[in-house]
Amino acid sequence: MRARKSGEDEQFEELTTTALYVPAENISDGWLEFPDEELHHLTHVLRQGAGSRVQVLDGCGGVWSVLVERREGRLAGRVLEHEQATAPVPAISVALAPGRKERLRWAVEKLAELGAARIIPLLSAQVSFPGDPGRLPERLQPVCVAALKQSRQPFLTRVEPPLGFADFMKTCTAAEVQAVFCHKKTQTRAPIGRNRLGGARELVLVVGPEGGFDSAESGSILSSGLPCLDLGLSTLRFETAALAGFVLLRQMLRGDQGLY
Amino acid sequence: MRARKSGEDEQFEELTTTALYVPAENISDGWLEFPDEELHHLTHVLRQGAGSRVQVLDGCGGVWSVLVERREGRLAGRVLEHEQATAPVPAISVALAPGRKERLRWAVEKLAELGAARIIPLLSAQVSFPGDPGRLPERLQPVCVAALKQSRQPFLTRVEPPLGFADFMKTCTAAEVQAVFCHKKTQTRAPIGRNRLGGARELVLVVGPEGGFDSAESGSILSSGLPCLDLGLSTLRFETAALAGFVLLRQMLRGDQGLY
Repeated sequence: MRARKSGEDEQFEELTTTALYVPAENISDGWLEFPDEELHHLTHVLRQGAGSRVQVLDGCGGVWSVLVERREGRLAGRVLEHEQATAPVPAISVALAPGRKERLRWAVEKLAELGAARIIPLLSAQVSFPGDPGRLPERLQPVCVAALKQSRQPFLTRVEPPLGFADFMKTCTAAEVQAVFCHKKTQTRAPIGRNRLGGARELVLVVGPEGGFDSAESGSILSSGLPCLDLGLSTLRFETAALAGFVLLRQMLRGDQGLY
Repeated sequence: MRARKSGEDEQFEELTTTALYVPAENISDGWLEFPDEELHHLTHVLRQGAGSRVQVLDGCGGVWSVLVERREGRLAGRVLEHEQATAPVPAISVALAPGRKERLRWAVEKLAELGAARIIPLLSAQVSFPGDPGRLPERLQPVCVAALKQSRQPFLTRVEPPLGFADFMKTCTAAEVQAVFCHKKTQTRAPIGRNRLGGARELVLVVGPEGGFDSAESGSILSSGLPCLDLGLSTLRFETAALAGFVLLRQMLRGDQGLY
């Protein structure tokens, strides 16, 4: 999935410790135009200029190896190699009720490192978010870009506009997504196998607020018949539940982590 | 595992949203002596005094319900109920090469919430820890206490004094612990089953520094024949690897998280 590396070019080897992010729409005809912030990163942080070879991710699965050259008065990337990663199916996304800003930022960074497809801020009844939820995508999308570059995930995690709990439940029952709710096991339900997660193209892990879903929401979840994920006896903070739940679901669905 | 609650006592229900921590040595003859910081928490944060009923964890599996009373000029707890949780076998611990302080603190908090038995700071060759590693236990133990109270884990996560990589490897080969190394899969090894984790009483997940183990350490790990855990293609930060690895191991060993 990684771009092939030239054995002779040790500087390239070193530079590949940090990738750059260039949206796919900035790439055409064998050239790649760096957004301002990536150009700044290239010249002021990596301290590279014309003649450097760098690795670029486009967030849509493209992994590009480019040579930095001056073109029309500005540094641009001339494409040397290109590989295309295939998006995993099903995609795994997370809907989570936002809590304290620093903890939310942590959760988003980690979920992006681990390859979440989308993050959907969920406005459930118990949410006490100290800010304007409408601004969450613009505040958190850069966190996902930084995590993409650091972790070299070929696919950018998208932060969606916030959604109310009832609206989210409608998308579930319309079978647009397959939801799995982080929820303590109840006496009335039996364990189910991962085959019950079905053949959906996208699976969304749903994590409630710090204080849990309220009783109406909880009732709506349990009566929906949709699967739930029990994370054990201890009371986890929302960001811990999101991470633990994501890791478990990813392992159930992809099994790409394991002992050897 | 939780202390039984009195159905009539709504104030008790509310107070149980935060437990107090009192070391086992402060509990005897039906009475419990609050350490200064817990007394402060009780009176200034929870705003409770004589006559309140609170839940106390002793960090050794004991879950105590106590009535706060004045005794010899100071508030103490009179024991009403006591339950004893059984420690899970095998215990799961984490040895991790410390990285940036804030990220290390976050990893320790999450591992404590999830029930890690011990955290061992691992001084491998590539560690660039900006501080005195010898002070890590005193700095990080309070993080575990806070996580215990918040998550209601009955067992306190212990932060050990730092250990050099070579010394740690000696404890592994002496079979005092069963180590599992977070390490990318190599061509020369085949996947193994969880039964290969054997019957050790304690299993230690080992997480290297941000830049990975150096080549000598990596060679020593692979030639030891000890099991490794591959966490997938993306490059995870050390704290993300620690969390993801812990969740996977816990699920393999205990299977106490699942779909229903």
